[in-house]
Amino acid sequence: MSSTKNPSEPSLQLAETKDWQQYIEEFRHAGHQTVDWIAEYLADTRAHPVLPSVRPGALIDALPASAPDRGGSFDALLDDFKKIVLPAVTHWNHPGFFAYFACTGSTPAILGEMIAAALNTNGLHWKTSPAVAELEHVALGWLREWIGLPSEFFGIVYDTASVSSMHALVAARELAEPEARENGSRGNLVVYTSDQAHSSIEKGGIAIGLGQKNVRKVPSDSLFRMRADLLREMIEADIASGMKPICVVATIGTTSSTSVDPVPEIANLCEEHNLWLHVDSAYAGPCAMLPEKRHFFAGMERAHSVVVNPHKWLLTPIDFSAFYTRHPDILRRAFSLVPEYLRASEDPRAIHLMDYGVPLGHRFRALKFWFVLRYFGRRGVEQFLRKQIQMAEEFADWVDRDARFERVAPVNFSTVCLRLKGSDDDNRAIIERVNATGKVFLSSTSLNNQIVLRVAIGNLGTTRADLELCWEIIRGAIC
Amino acid sequence: MSSTKNPSEPSLQLAETKDWQQYIEEFRHAGHQTVDWIAEYLADTRAHPVLPSVRPGALIDALPASAPDRGGSFDALLDDFKKIVLPAVTHWNHPGFFAYFACTGSTPAILGEMIAAALNTNGLHWKTSPAVAELEHVALGWLREWIGLPSEFFGIVYDTASVSSMHALVAARELAEPEARENGSRGNLVVYTSDQAHSSIEKGGIAIGLGQKNVRKVPSDSLFRMRADLLREMIEADIASGMKPICVVATIGTTSSTSVDPVPEIANLCEEHNLWLHVDSAYAGPCAMLPEKRHFFAGMERAHSVVVNPHKWLLTPIDFSAFYTRHPDILRRAFSLVPEYLRASEDPRAIHLMDYGVPLGHRFRALKFWFVLRYFGRRGVEQFLRKQIQMAEEFADWVDRDARFERVAPVNFSTVCLRLKGSDDDNRAIIERVNATGKVFLSSTSLNNQIVLRVAIGNLGTTRADLELCWEIIRGAIC
Repeated sequence: MSSTKNPSEPSLQLAETKDWQQYIEEFRHAGHQTVDWIAEYLADTRAHPVLPSVRPGALIDALPASAPDRGGSFDALLDDFKKIVLPAVTHWNHPGFFAYFACTGSTPAILGEMIAAALNTNGLHWKTSPAVAELEHVALGWLREWIGLPSEFFGIVYDTASVSSMHALVAARELAEPEARENGSRGNLVVYTSDQAHSSIEKGGIAIGLGQKNVRKVPSDSLFRMRADLLREMIEADIASGMKPICVVATIGTTSSTSVDPVPEIANLCEEHNLWLHVDSAYAGPCAMLPEKRHFFAGMERAHSVVVNPHKWLLTPIDFSAFYTRHPDILRRAFSLVPEYLRASEDPRAIHLMDYGVPLGHRFRALKFWFVLRYFGRRGVEQFLRKQIQMAEEFADWVDRDARFERVAPVNFSTVCLRLKGSDDDNRAIIERVNATGKVFLSSTSLNNQIVLRVAIGNLGTTRADLELCWEIIRGAIC
Repeated sequence: MSSTKNPSEPSLQLAETKDWQQYIEEFRHAGHQTVDWIAEYLADTRAHPVLPSVRPGALIDALPASAPDRGGSFDALLDDFKKIVLPAVTHWNHPGFFAYFACTGSTPAILGEMIAAALNTNGLHWKTSPAVAELEHVALGWLREWIGLPSEFFGIVYDTASVSSMHALVAARELAEPEARENGSRGNLVVYTSDQAHSSIEKGGIAIGLGQKNVRKVPSDSLFRMRADLLREMIEADIASGMKPICVVATIGTTSSTSVDPVPEIANLCEEHNLWLHVDSAYAGPCAMLPEKRHFFAGMERAHSVVVNPHKWLLTPIDFSAFYTRHPDILRRAFSLVPEYLRASEDPRAIHLMDYGVPLGHRFRALKFWFVLRYFGRRGVEQFLRKQIQMAEEFADWVDRDARFERVAPVNFSTVCLRLKGSDDDNRAIIERVNATGKVFLSSTSLNNQIVLRVAIGNLGTTRADLELCWEIIRGAIC
């Protein structure tokens, strides 16, 4: 590895000797090289192992401990990226990536990110870049319509679903206890979510000062859906003991099994007790545009807020989490804080994104997403989703026909949960052997207190042949 | 505007008819076009008005209310970007952008973002992309060394300084009241910052449930620096009345005037009372690498956490906020929460970024920053900073020699605060006229209860001629 230390001792001090035109022409040359590299990479991601075979710390050890004193050429830089950095990358683009929620970027989104990085424009408030606020408004309006949310839902983009859900919790607190903004949380506020909810709900509760114990885990039923009857009991018990319920987080497409909470019943309870209803559909949300999956989303339109992540299953590279709320006024009341140096237009049509959250800077993420929606169109996206759902159903069928395995949850969307009929150790061993092939990457979860393998389909490049290979490798990994 | 509705009714259903190779070749073609467009754009950003002349809502009105049913070609998409979206962009790249903190991207960073978008790799925990965690570790280590922080400081990248500072406040709470994680905030925790601190400190206090009134504003002196004597009095009064001080946020380079709080004295107080010291140097931080500016950063190494934003003044496009802490263990204690489906390597060298904050997804932001440091090198970055500081000092000199104007604060870094000797309305009128030219963009602030013009220099493309033009336009804008 020592030969890779200081690999590009440069002969040139770029910023000292080059004029602007030369600086631009160097970019043009390197930019074209990079586009060609990206095209080759995307054309054959299968050539890379999906999981890198590096040990922890190897990349750190391979790079110099200090930055270079002198600048280097683009050639040296791109060479080192390919030789030193790339072997430590996990290839989320690989068609054999079935771990977590398989996710997918796409070429129009890459172009959008290129342009956004070049513009480097920042939508703090309207005037600082009208295009950032307004293209976000338009693109989120398009998605809102696709997934069947009414037009009163206001959309904003945060980086991740964890951050979106944290904002939902703060808005819920603002609704229930507006004095918390000035005086702080009082320590008796309670949030409910199912025992299958994503850990980000608990983490959000910790961050905003509710406390982990005040994020109640409602038990789920045999299909991993929140039990609304127990939710009712828990809310009533908390009220009786002097606690103050503020929010229920329901999930449409849970992380472990893609189960769907009974949102209509939960919405009834929320309306009865005036609780904020937040629907986490970060993964499954795009399926709301498919009539045949629409039933899973019943009641979503009654939520106070909804999160859907185009950076999971809607062809948009990380980061892009779409947050919708019927109560932007409450979100603004919770977060707006405008010092003199950020004084903004009072025009009622001017959207000031800084008023709706913690981050002040606001990247032009809308551009990539607008490019995606334009390039694929509704039919293209629907076809993409349906193909992946169909592949998941076919995979489930293969599992069902092999008596050594059992399926652990229904395939509601594009994720199959299965296990070898055996011990947890047997199942863990399968995952280790599968992942060591470099051709497939699976992750596991726990359902009914047993280790379960998840095959999550979501990549634009995944074909039936990739899936067949995956099944062959899993079966071959049985001891 | 009606002619721009549905401007690219496509004749082609991309995802339905094209094979993968065609999909890639379309990207290659459009990618090369885009690189050329970026090169032309960066070669002559002055051709664009720095502030767009659009009215609020104009872009929304110019675009269709619904997404297209059918996909469209890259040509149509890029055409519409240039014709419809670009005229609504505020050009932060424009050499006449002197508002807020002028910031700057650079060409190596654009390449880095291109590749990161194409890889779409996500560093939740080590295995999900070793390169994300380890290149971030290396690049932040390089910057840490440049700015003179000891090696025990652990670095992580968040999106914005607002989010970085919010994490500092949660870590401070974890240090002072570890039971808050489980039980929630108790409502008696207090944070101190100066009356010149950025609004994000208050906003962070609101979000995490401390309450706005418990973010105390310590008065500043005639040079806009926090008064440590009053800080001491306030801490002692709060303790006497049963409140629990947990944190002081000091600023090196405040937003309004770039003033510098007396960090050594504040650090003494923090050590005496066991308070978390967070240093916000989001803007000025890179200057810590210059020996002639080093005195402003005295005591920074005694902080518990420090934030520096390369996406402001270190050639890196938004977003990239570098957060350093001497107590990663406390940050991890505050935020680590690992469900079965995110179980991660127990190798002591495996860095799991999800353990250190609210967001779970972690974009490969390190790549662009590593490219920047490699391309420019230490000498290139130092030369860049010094040139801009020198321009600011020269501008200040011009102001000082015009008796109609007064300077309101010292030029500690690259920002000049000035005002016409006249009313606030006179000064507001100047800003409006200046900004209407499309050649220069200034923002204002309030210092000593008067409206003040800020000329913030920070763009790689800004030359002395741009600055001369700015001064000419300001003087020409006097009624």
